[in-house]
Amino acid sequence: MKILKNKLKSELNIRTEMDFPTKGIEFIDINPLIIQKKTLKEIVKIFVRELKDKNIDYIVAPEARGFLFGMAISDNLNCGCIPVRKKGKLPPSTVAATFDYEKEYGRDTLELPKLVNEDYSNKNFYIVDDIYATGNTVNAISDAIKGLGGNIIGVGAVINIVELNNNKEVFSLIDINES
Amino acid sequence: MKILKNKLKSELNIRTEMDFPTKGIEFIDINPLIIQKKTLKEIVKIFVRELKDKNIDYIVAPEARGFLFGMAISDNLNCGCIPVRKKGKLPPSTVAATFDYEKEYGRDTLELPKLVNEDYSNKNFYIVDDIYATGNTVNAISDAIKGLGGNIIGVGAVINIVELNNNKEVFSLIDINES
Repeated sequence: MKILKNKLKSELNIRTEMDFPTKGIEFIDINPLIIQKKTLKEIVKIFVRELKDKNIDYIVAPEARGFLFGMAISDNLNCGCIPVRKKGKLPPSTVAATFDYEKEYGRDTLELPKLVNEDYSNKNFYIVDDIYATGNTVNAISDAIKGLGGNIIGVGAVINIVELNNNKEVFSLIDINES
Repeated sequence: MKILKNKLKSELNIRTEMDFPTKGIEFIDINPLIIQKKTLKEIVKIFVRELKDKNIDYIVAPEARGFLFGMAISDNLNCGCIPVRKKGKLPPSTVAATFDYEKEYGRDTLELPKLVNEDYSNKNFYIVDDIYATGNTVNAISDAIKGLGGNIIGVGAVINIVELNNNKEVFSLIDINES
């Protein structure tokens, strides 16, 4: 793993493991970043500084690790948090959109929950995840929200694996290449 | 669903669905509580008020919905956040403990990550989840942490389904019975 950019002042501690979960994949374990209180606090603070003037109505957080960052940022920004769930976790009556996306191996299905007393149209959404790799998950979420009439204000991730995407629009704290 | 206690001042909005995910189960959808910014903020604030003087080193948050509350509370308390993962999500070299627990149907396995530059012994842990039902998940996490020498300071949940457990020690914001 090669670090190309690092906005954190606190000590950077990422654990990696080769050939996990399958051969040829280098797993990036972000747990140290939130197990350490200093890094946790700094990560949330940097997102909040970046987002506070963007008129965001909802932070959108993909299951599962996106939940960690999404809710803490929402609390600071004083906006709502939308957990994007894997299919089957939500009762059909509470689902606003169901959509597929391409995974490393095969496809998977995600669901957006219905909002409360309003719908997605003309609201402002910002998608936050832990790692931005190919961008497939985030792109699928983005398309689904646009399909419901919502505005995507931007996309952020703690770590951007730059070589896997060519997206200059992603806001990230740490940029890496795996090779 | 019958509400026995509710500490929230903002409008309580919980969606329920009978026979989901399986017949006879009433599913409690907590999404409205965090989709609405007022409730999100109030929930985090109540936890922080309850926990701020308890000398907590780490908030422990079970996958997946525990992640939402765990990280936001950690950010406010200025402590670390420990995501408890389902088995297979973490490289073995980063795991501190693997343990089983009894689910509604069959058993499941969870894993605690290693801390950074220290171990679990003599640290203070507080477990937070969205819903406290039978308590099996939280009890298994609690036992695993004690097995590593850590101190369990307490257990909290947004919703306590009182009739499914007889635990007076759980800190909860909303108490309900399903029947």
